[in-house]
Amino acid sequence: MSVTAAEGFEAAGVAAGLKSSGGPDVALVVNRGPQKTAAAVFTSNRAKANPIMWSQEAIRDGRAEAVVLNSGGANCFTGSFGFQTSHQTAEKAADLLGVGAIDVIVCSTGLIGTGDEVFRQKVLEGTTAAAGRLSADGGESAARAIMTTDTVPKQATRTRDGWTIGGMAKGAGMLAPGLATMLVVITTDAVLTPQQADQHLRSATRTTFDRLDSDGAMSTNDQVTLLASGASGIEPDAVAFRDALTDLCLDLATQLMADAEGASHEIHIRVTGAVTEQDAVTVGRSVARNNLFKTAIFGNDPNWGRVLAAIGTTNAQFDPYDTDVTINGVRVCTKGGPDRPREEVDLTPRRTTVDIDLRVGDEAATIMTNDLTHAYVHENSAYSS
Amino acid sequence: MSVTAAEGFEAAGVAAGLKSSGGPDVALVVNRGPQKTAAAVFTSNRAKANPIMWSQEAIRDGRAEAVVLNSGGANCFTGSFGFQTSHQTAEKAADLLGVGAIDVIVCSTGLIGTGDEVFRQKVLEGTTAAAGRLSADGGESAARAIMTTDTVPKQATRTRDGWTIGGMAKGAGMLAPGLATMLVVITTDAVLTPQQADQHLRSATRTTFDRLDSDGAMSTNDQVTLLASGASGIEPDAVAFRDALTDLCLDLATQLMADAEGASHEIHIRVTGAVTEQDAVTVGRSVARNNLFKTAIFGNDPNWGRVLAAIGTTNAQFDPYDTDVTINGVRVCTKGGPDRPREEVDLTPRRTTVDIDLRVGDEAATIMTNDLTHAYVHENSAYSS
Repeated sequence: MSVTAAEGFEAAGVAAGLKSSGGPDVALVVNRGPQKTAAAVFTSNRAKANPIMWSQEAIRDGRAEAVVLNSGGANCFTGSFGFQTSHQTAEKAADLLGVGAIDVIVCSTGLIGTGDEVFRQKVLEGTTAAAGRLSADGGESAARAIMTTDTVPKQATRTRDGWTIGGMAKGAGMLAPGLATMLVVITTDAVLTPQQADQHLRSATRTTFDRLDSDGAMSTNDQVTLLASGASGIEPDAVAFRDALTDLCLDLATQLMADAEGASHEIHIRVTGAVTEQDAVTVGRSVARNNLFKTAIFGNDPNWGRVLAAIGTTNAQFDPYDTDVTINGVRVCTKGGPDRPREEVDLTPRRTTVDIDLRVGDEAATIMTNDLTHAYVHENSAYSS
Repeated sequence: MSVTAAEGFEAAGVAAGLKSSGGPDVALVVNRGPQKTAAAVFTSNRAKANPIMWSQEAIRDGRAEAVVLNSGGANCFTGSFGFQTSHQTAEKAADLLGVGAIDVIVCSTGLIGTGDEVFRQKVLEGTTAAAGRLSADGGESAARAIMTTDTVPKQATRTRDGWTIGGMAKGAGMLAPGLATMLVVITTDAVLTPQQADQHLRSATRTTFDRLDSDGAMSTNDQVTLLASGASGIEPDAVAFRDALTDLCLDLATQLMADAEGASHEIHIRVTGAVTEQDAVTVGRSVARNNLFKTAIFGNDPNWGRVLAAIGTTNAQFDPYDTDVTINGVRVCTKGGPDRPREEVDLTPRRTTVDIDLRVGDEAATIMTNDLTHAYVHENSAYSS
């Protein structure tokens, strides 16, 4: 179970003909209350899709009744017609649910530039069909309806002292900082104010989804939405809720990384000894985005020189000749020079850890990324997005 | 002819056993004067190789007698032993030429971490051998000795009003801003002061090598060196010299792009209508580094949505809904929406132009890059650097 794990939520996923495969492509998640608290974070890409522009307005009052999501078309760079489509989608769902359109969030994913009249009709019909199939068991079908190149649906739940958090996510490429063609809906039956929901969500995404940098390419459509029904009647301990939400987001982010397009390694870049957390993030991201590092890992080559060269492009406080690099537990570089023989490093497992100790401070951060493979090139040269 | 095209220069390239192929791997370029003016620009990577650290000191007085270059080992992250190797290399050449070691520039390229006792001996022996074969016809052999994964030597000359500029370059990957595993030596018989040489070189590289961004991965060893012998006796017109030098640098940069590892397209990203030149550079670089854009071009897909998404990640002044994108002469996007059908774009030629009109100002810049291909992944996962 996922977005319907918490009390007070119903969901559905239906096939509306947006995907050429005929698979499910429109999902609806509805908050039955009693509370209708909501928060969302959006792509920081300045080229934002129409559903993002609609949803940014809709979330402003910290309240939402439902989320409509579609795959099979990003409705991005589709002009004012496209914005009207997002608006009409919200109105359609609102009519069906007997709520206000401004309380309906809209998310889209798929090919940029897709958003014509045919697209609009299918999304509206899909919304109607989904509204007719809402159920407290519908989480799985909703999770499947938002998949694009994903090979598996991504779901997670956490239950603590009388309250539950559930979530679903899609995304398998363009996973980049500030979120990435990644749609996430998280629900909880905990009692939260809009301010609490917003703070918890920003805190949790900052160290999870925001640290996932699969290929450095930021999407136009990313959105993570949190809906709180209050159905448990329990006001959670703030620290416990934040920890559980962060843990659930990390779970979903890890599932996204594991399903990234064409990847053969899931790479955790742990930067320690930084002066600031931001320095640690900057260093990790620079390594994660270095194509020479990424291809080396694909080739099972523990190429620490490329790691140091990537760090050298940043403005982080560090001395290349006082930096240590450990790959899969083998210290291959000590103080900017060779240490253990590279032959000792086993890079055959998918899970890869690169530990970078900058030795100048006490702050740390982990960036998650993938290697750069033939399959990535194939998938992204053949699939339009 | 190349680095020996201008009067006053001799060069040689020899095989010293650094390359496992047995090919030439040590080059020496000597300025016979009468002037010994020199200028150089270096990688902006903060993780600098030992030859860079040596050469930065050697160039400080605006004077150089010779440049020793080796392929087959970057002498980077090789500790104080590696720095001593660069120093000893300069001393060896200085002894052989009867000059001061501080007037000898040293450049290295190849695998990071290579720089042991065997490496040192081979470089020193190669320097001796090269000094014994110096000739005014040695430019071609020097150009071949600095090749790594290059498939062809890169050379260019420009002759104007009584003076000549000649150059050689190597580099076929890790081509990134602030220069990239790219070694360039340029010679001229024009009469220049150190200040003039420095100003002309910085001006010329700023709009040529600095705008080559093959794969976003900046090297630890990049260096462009200009030597001026004054042998023509002519003080060139400043504008004419700068134009000719810039033209020669663009020629060499274009040769580097054409030989980039595994590329199937040479992409010129021309950004116009920017408020500042820096904005135009930022936008061009962001597109050039976007792996989804690069794989799309490999797949002959004129995916303008990925272009706009890449621009959206920058802080440049622009409105995604007032931006035009033209690919190989076909306006596929007008004001952030679809224009001509993508089927009209022919992406089969290697040369590709992407014109981006931001429509907010009058500044422009062109960034040169390559597509991301299977061959790139193969070469960089199999070849350690």
